[in-house]
Amino acid sequence: MRSGKLVIAQGGGPTAVINQSLAGAVLEARLFPQIERIYGARHGVRGIVDEDFVDLSAESRANLEAIAATPSSALGSTRDKPDLAYCRNILASLKATGASWFLYIGGNDTADTVRIVSEEAAKEGFDLRSIHIPKTIDNDLMENDHTPGFPSAARFVAQAFMGADLDNRSLPGVYVAVVMGRHAGFLTAASAAARTIEGDGPHLIYLPERIFDEAKFLSEVKLVHERLGRCVIALSEGIHDADGTPLSVKLAKTVEKDAHGNIQLSGTRALADLLCEEIKSKLGIKRVRGDTFGYLQRSFAGCVSDVDRREAREVGEFAVKHAIWGACDGSVAIRRIGDYAVDYAIVKLAKVGGKTKVMADAFIAPSGSDVTPLFQEYLRPLLGSDLPQPARLRSGAIAKVLKR
Amino acid sequence: MRSGKLVIAQGGGPTAVINQSLAGAVLEARLFPQIERIYGARHGVRGIVDEDFVDLSAESRANLEAIAATPSSALGSTRDKPDLAYCRNILASLKATGASWFLYIGGNDTADTVRIVSEEAAKEGFDLRSIHIPKTIDNDLMENDHTPGFPSAARFVAQAFMGADLDNRSLPGVYVAVVMGRHAGFLTAASAAARTIEGDGPHLIYLPERIFDEAKFLSEVKLVHERLGRCVIALSEGIHDADGTPLSVKLAKTVEKDAHGNIQLSGTRALADLLCEEIKSKLGIKRVRGDTFGYLQRSFAGCVSDVDRREAREVGEFAVKHAIWGACDGSVAIRRIGDYAVDYAIVKLAKVGGKTKVMADAFIAPSGSDVTPLFQEYLRPLLGSDLPQPARLRSGAIAKVLKR
Repeated sequence: MRSGKLVIAQGGGPTAVINQSLAGAVLEARLFPQIERIYGARHGVRGIVDEDFVDLSAESRANLEAIAATPSSALGSTRDKPDLAYCRNILASLKATGASWFLYIGGNDTADTVRIVSEEAAKEGFDLRSIHIPKTIDNDLMENDHTPGFPSAARFVAQAFMGADLDNRSLPGVYVAVVMGRHAGFLTAASAAARTIEGDGPHLIYLPERIFDEAKFLSEVKLVHERLGRCVIALSEGIHDADGTPLSVKLAKTVEKDAHGNIQLSGTRALADLLCEEIKSKLGIKRVRGDTFGYLQRSFAGCVSDVDRREAREVGEFAVKHAIWGACDGSVAIRRIGDYAVDYAIVKLAKVGGKTKVMADAFIAPSGSDVTPLFQEYLRPLLGSDLPQPARLRSGAIAKVLKR
Repeated sequence: MRSGKLVIAQGGGPTAVINQSLAGAVLEARLFPQIERIYGARHGVRGIVDEDFVDLSAESRANLEAIAATPSSALGSTRDKPDLAYCRNILASLKATGASWFLYIGGNDTADTVRIVSEEAAKEGFDLRSIHIPKTIDNDLMENDHTPGFPSAARFVAQAFMGADLDNRSLPGVYVAVVMGRHAGFLTAASAAARTIEGDGPHLIYLPERIFDEAKFLSEVKLVHERLGRCVIALSEGIHDADGTPLSVKLAKTVEKDAHGNIQLSGTRALADLLCEEIKSKLGIKRVRGDTFGYLQRSFAGCVSDVDRREAREVGEFAVKHAIWGACDGSVAIRRIGDYAVDYAIVKLAKVGGKTKVMADAFIAPSGSDVTPLFQEYLRPLLGSDLPQPARLRSGAIAKVLKR
């Protein structure tokens, strides 16, 4: 029987529930006496190479539960993308510390790291069980119905657009908000969940899965604005023209030049500003406002889908069960069963690592500037319970006296 | 006894709880038979002048309660600042519709409108009772301990900084977020509520009540970054240099010129970008990120202080009671009693209208880049119950094997 230490780490961008997976794995690992100690690596694989470990076996259950409810990565994260040499250093450190299990929570880059570590360990004859635990607000992992972290970020985006749409009803004009997601439009598409009745925004949704055509964009904004006297727009930071270069990247370069090298604008913020300016100048609409949701959408404290919370916990638990009882390394995947339940499976690391899932054509409206009802059905159960329900006045207009 | 219709309207920027005040006033007004009908004016005073009224007496109690829980102004709002001629049109419309009471929910501009309407009605001998109901996320109304709408916006800012600080711990660097408030720094200062233990961010808070000195700013960021390896900064959109011009305004002009008139950047977004760029280039820090909270902080659906909710309801109720039983026009004011309860009073409209309260010196740290414990004591009860409580790992470091 394999015995020794279990090393766990967190990689990539934090989410609202990534610590649920950490707590799920740690609490489950404590049930198996062959796991002598549970070590957490600080700042992902960087901490493994640097032997920067903390002893998670020493954490109280109450504190682990409190950490589970805390957004962002409690162990710290890293943006390092290990190559083969880096992975060999990971293995050397794991060996030296007496690890027999390696669990890494993260997205497709993280899964790819686990793949290399797994393959190299096998080559060396190092008896290590390596498991990838899924996490990403981008929802872009292959083999998964959806990914822990996405439902909570999607809920944030939905609640943000609910409020922004009510704000825009109150003081009409055009509102553009830029949402995270360079290649996959799921998070931007989640804005559709803000709509309750006909006329609710967002009225237009632009995804990186479709080529962004500014002329088409402006004519669509014009139409909505003429019809409703206002227009709310959700825009992915990854929107790009026919050659595939994101507008934000092109824009960042332009603005850097214009500013004589003094001001280097972050692309996504400049994106909202540019499009607002285009709407003002080309459509002659006066009140145009733009926001870029930025880091709030992945780390806001206090906006969590309870479905996401539960599933993020379960993928951590499942990873440990498989690490003990399973016969292979792999990546934990979420499978949807009916409407709505999930089951978990282990899939080959190569099927997830380094690959990106984008939105299916069936999720995108033929217009290219909205989602389909099928996507809304897909999204709805993920957002969790007690989503705010905006209400509006029903009362009819009173006949005028002076101006009748 | 005065009898007739009651006209109510909402002005200025929406808040998370402004509909609580609407519901509070409408439900209370129904208890008085001398109020024949309750009319809501659509889009503030603009709706009064245009005779764009809806009959709020027809709304169900359940729907009014649902609307109360919905952010933004259910009646719609306006940015119109009426002059004397405009106010005479308001009076003509109120007279024609048979109004005997006029309630207007809003900030200091709204209070000033009510003042002019009240004075003109008196001059004309029109028996109208006019009351201003306070609302503003800026918390800048004179005579008030605090203002409905501020506590919920403050809670949003606190939760946003909690998450941003945890995110920044996970992936260290410098993070700058720009918060609303052109003249009063209360909302930016609310970021301090995100801190639990030593080392928590925001580490630096810049308010419009103090002159912003870029050299001082950079040296303070440098010091924090050297000490902690990271730095989280809260910055008011209203920060300005010695001549009083906000940096965002200066910046907007500069960028417009640099972009050859093609890109007119909104000042506050450009502000975050500029300061991020300054930190990168002058301090040589690599990972620097900036956000501008934008409209989310005043309209996000699902982030409300329960204290704010209750008080916003009560100012609406109180306004109607005073409108019926009181002997004068006025503005409802919130008074704090002990730690923590409130009472309501009616103050003269001229004491609130058109005036701006800023943060007391006792609330601002001598450094000029933080708040005092006194401000934290002032803020704490306003944020309401069940504020998220971030937790962190306690476990100590493991001795290194390879690199010892």
